[in-house]
Amino acid sequence: MTPRLVIVGGSDAGISAALQARKCAPDVQVQVIYADAYPNFSVCGLPYYIGGAVSDWPLLAHRTAAELEAAGITLMPQAVAEAIDPSRQIVWVQARGQRQALPYDQLVIATGAKPIAPPIPGLELPGVFMLHTIDQGRAIRGYLEAYHPRRAVVVGAGYIGLEMTEVLVERNIAVTLLEQAPAVLPTVDLELGQLLTSYLEGKGVSVHCRTRVTAIEPTSDGLMVHSLEGGRFPADLVMVVVGVEPDTGLAKAAGARTGIRGAIAVDFAMRTSLPHVFAAGDCVETYHRLLRRPVYLPLGTTAHKQGRVAGENAVGGSRHFAGSLGTQVVKLFDWAIARTGLREDEAKAWGVAARTVAVEAWDHKSYYPEAELLHLRVTFDRTTHRLLGAQMVGPWRAAVAKRIDVMATAISCELSLRDVENLDLSYTPPLGTPWDPWQIAAEVGQESVERAP
Amino acid sequence: MTPRLVIVGGSDAGISAALQARKCAPDVQVQVIYADAYPNFSVCGLPYYIGGAVSDWPLLAHRTAAELEAAGITLMPQAVAEAIDPSRQIVWVQARGQRQALPYDQLVIATGAKPIAPPIPGLELPGVFMLHTIDQGRAIRGYLEAYHPRRAVVVGAGYIGLEMTEVLVERNIAVTLLEQAPAVLPTVDLELGQLLTSYLEGKGVSVHCRTRVTAIEPTSDGLMVHSLEGGRFPADLVMVVVGVEPDTGLAKAAGARTGIRGAIAVDFAMRTSLPHVFAAGDCVETYHRLLRRPVYLPLGTTAHKQGRVAGENAVGGSRHFAGSLGTQVVKLFDWAIARTGLREDEAKAWGVAARTVAVEAWDHKSYYPEAELLHLRVTFDRTTHRLLGAQMVGPWRAAVAKRIDVMATAISCELSLRDVENLDLSYTPPLGTPWDPWQIAAEVGQESVERAP
Repeated sequence: MTPRLVIVGGSDAGISAALQARKCAPDVQVQVIYADAYPNFSVCGLPYYIGGAVSDWPLLAHRTAAELEAAGITLMPQAVAEAIDPSRQIVWVQARGQRQALPYDQLVIATGAKPIAPPIPGLELPGVFMLHTIDQGRAIRGYLEAYHPRRAVVVGAGYIGLEMTEVLVERNIAVTLLEQAPAVLPTVDLELGQLLTSYLEGKGVSVHCRTRVTAIEPTSDGLMVHSLEGGRFPADLVMVVVGVEPDTGLAKAAGARTGIRGAIAVDFAMRTSLPHVFAAGDCVETYHRLLRRPVYLPLGTTAHKQGRVAGENAVGGSRHFAGSLGTQVVKLFDWAIARTGLREDEAKAWGVAARTVAVEAWDHKSYYPEAELLHLRVTFDRTTHRLLGAQMVGPWRAAVAKRIDVMATAISCELSLRDVENLDLSYTPPLGTPWDPWQIAAEVGQESVERAP
Repeated sequence: MTPRLVIVGGSDAGISAALQARKCAPDVQVQVIYADAYPNFSVCGLPYYIGGAVSDWPLLAHRTAAELEAAGITLMPQAVAEAIDPSRQIVWVQARGQRQALPYDQLVIATGAKPIAPPIPGLELPGVFMLHTIDQGRAIRGYLEAYHPRRAVVVGAGYIGLEMTEVLVERNIAVTLLEQAPAVLPTVDLELGQLLTSYLEGKGVSVHCRTRVTAIEPTSDGLMVHSLEGGRFPADLVMVVVGVEPDTGLAKAAGARTGIRGAIAVDFAMRTSLPHVFAAGDCVETYHRLLRRPVYLPLGTTAHKQGRVAGENAVGGSRHFAGSLGTQVVKLFDWAIARTGLREDEAKAWGVAARTVAVEAWDHKSYYPEAELLHLRVTFDRTTHRLLGAQMVGPWRAAVAKRIDVMATAISCELSLRDVENLDLSYTPPLGTPWDPWQIAAEVGQESVERAP
């Protein structure tokens, strides 16, 4: 009989698993169950659909349903997986008003994450939105087009908060950005966060850090966001984007072991604690390549990789997930902000004597037109001089995203500061400098340890 | 007594050596002898000065003479080193009409390269230029401004030939580009060279490959370039840029051992065969990181690195040059062309069973505006699946230069195709794809060996 692979979840991890399973085992029967109508959509693109750079939501599909079906995948849209019976190898699915038992030989859970709803009143008010699904994205764009809000409050200055700030400003909406932490984008160092705050203010954004939102209330002409610090921020639109948590109800009810932040525990093969059940993506713990232990780091790139591993192993493969470094980049107007590896505080919490050097350097020879200044931070082990992390802020046209990838590769390969200085990187005056900015930072770091180990 | 370090050559390698020596040993007396009036100039920037993007030649200085002197370096401009007496540790220098003996404790030879003058008549004609020195660059720009040539022939489609083609076209000069090889830029694969030929033709350049120039003759209204194949190419300006060779007369006369292509032989510490004599930059053999043997690969980045190693070791250090991968990038109008490591033919000549896969991939999610197609080639060992080389052609705004650096880092670290697929690289829809183009190419390579090892 044809082996049956059932996948719960039609986003990055689920579809990657399905495609890889079909590629490795063309005879396997692959069914993908998903609760909405959007298989294989790029939820990372939602801010750009809301902003209008992406004209319509169907464009956000990585692949169309027809393409997935042509790859031999059976799609079950608007189907909610209600329960897993791991002993009988059955998923109970609610679809089109009916409950049906779907038998599986192997199962992949790819239920993703859900946005965190902070415990404050007012989240249900019209004009207040969270953002994680295509439906939410469509609702926000519909609201913008129907009501033309003039004032927005964005609660949370993480990646999505910054992206939403950009696209709302570009729609000529006055944006107030509220963040609990001392600076925006707490995933990078405070110094860079402060730089970003100034940059946002230069774009007309009203930025309030160390601000904890306590309530959202309706007013006669819209909404009012209240903070514990006594701030009152009027708005016509409020975006609550304070992070995500793993969506693990299904897996937990079936008895799957969970770990950090409640995410599903998996091994390197993406196996859960349940027999014949794999899991991948934003619902699972992610192995950290430097820390060598699981963390919760929900990222699209990781979901694709874990899905591919789960799909291959579910059909008899023996592939391992190599781990994440938390490499991330976000575009913010003309800038990009990128990081990989550990910040100094993360490295110290891990027990490593870390040091960070900060450098500013030109992206290319300054005699050639349009040279741009890049802000770099490199964190390294003071004893071994091994790289631990890197951060960069600068104009995205100066290749910030790919520059961080050089360091992500270097950190993966356990390079030291001196190793970075020795790399043979490319140079031509319009596109680089004879010593790459990372090499300049590595030299500064090396000198700092030679002066004061 | 203060130790005396004498450096012959005031370009990248010489000045890097001088600066590093002063940094490591602030008490050392450092003298830099150079034949022209331009210490520490960026000769790589000459095409952009000739084209006009760089308004005046003094801007091409990496550092001013005053900055170098402030770093404790004694400059001897317009001083020609005529001979080295290694037994007496003396350099004979001709300067300001006088010959003087300059004693040294350690010597660094950084005499660089000189342009190859092909054995054809007509090189001395007015309007015929080679390009390697600041004086040559100034002469060409002066000629352009005085005579406003309408037609140029560029002989040689290497890096400098392509750069000169671009800047001449941008000055509204009709350019004919002649190249002996079957395609332009023979440092990349033929397929990419052919792509570049079409691109150049789209910019109005008349490209003739498999064309060997035999003579340049004066005519009633300018110059005529003749080829062995019977071509006749009229011009008002002819650029002869067919490569460089190491400038080693001084070192050879002193008895220094030379090696490949006549370049000065050096060890990892950049020591020559002569006691107390180091050498660095375009005049020396360069250790190749993959081939693990010396090659001749004159590049500015390498000159900087070798100079730093020579300067540090000349004052008692013990640093090693880590080697080159031949990483290079050139801008050509809106495109950049980059390579690192070995081409398949180079790998095969080295005795490795190599294979190359070609991939086209978007630089960022195609639903976001202005996505650009990149052309990639990845060469790998068919047996071990280890990376050997990578090449990319695409719009330079799509970060081609930094994308090649990711692969230069990966090759340095001896990564395999699967290792590349496992790298945790950055992603956001406006600046990348969930699987980076190199990862897509690595997967295609991996599948090719699984299908047919």
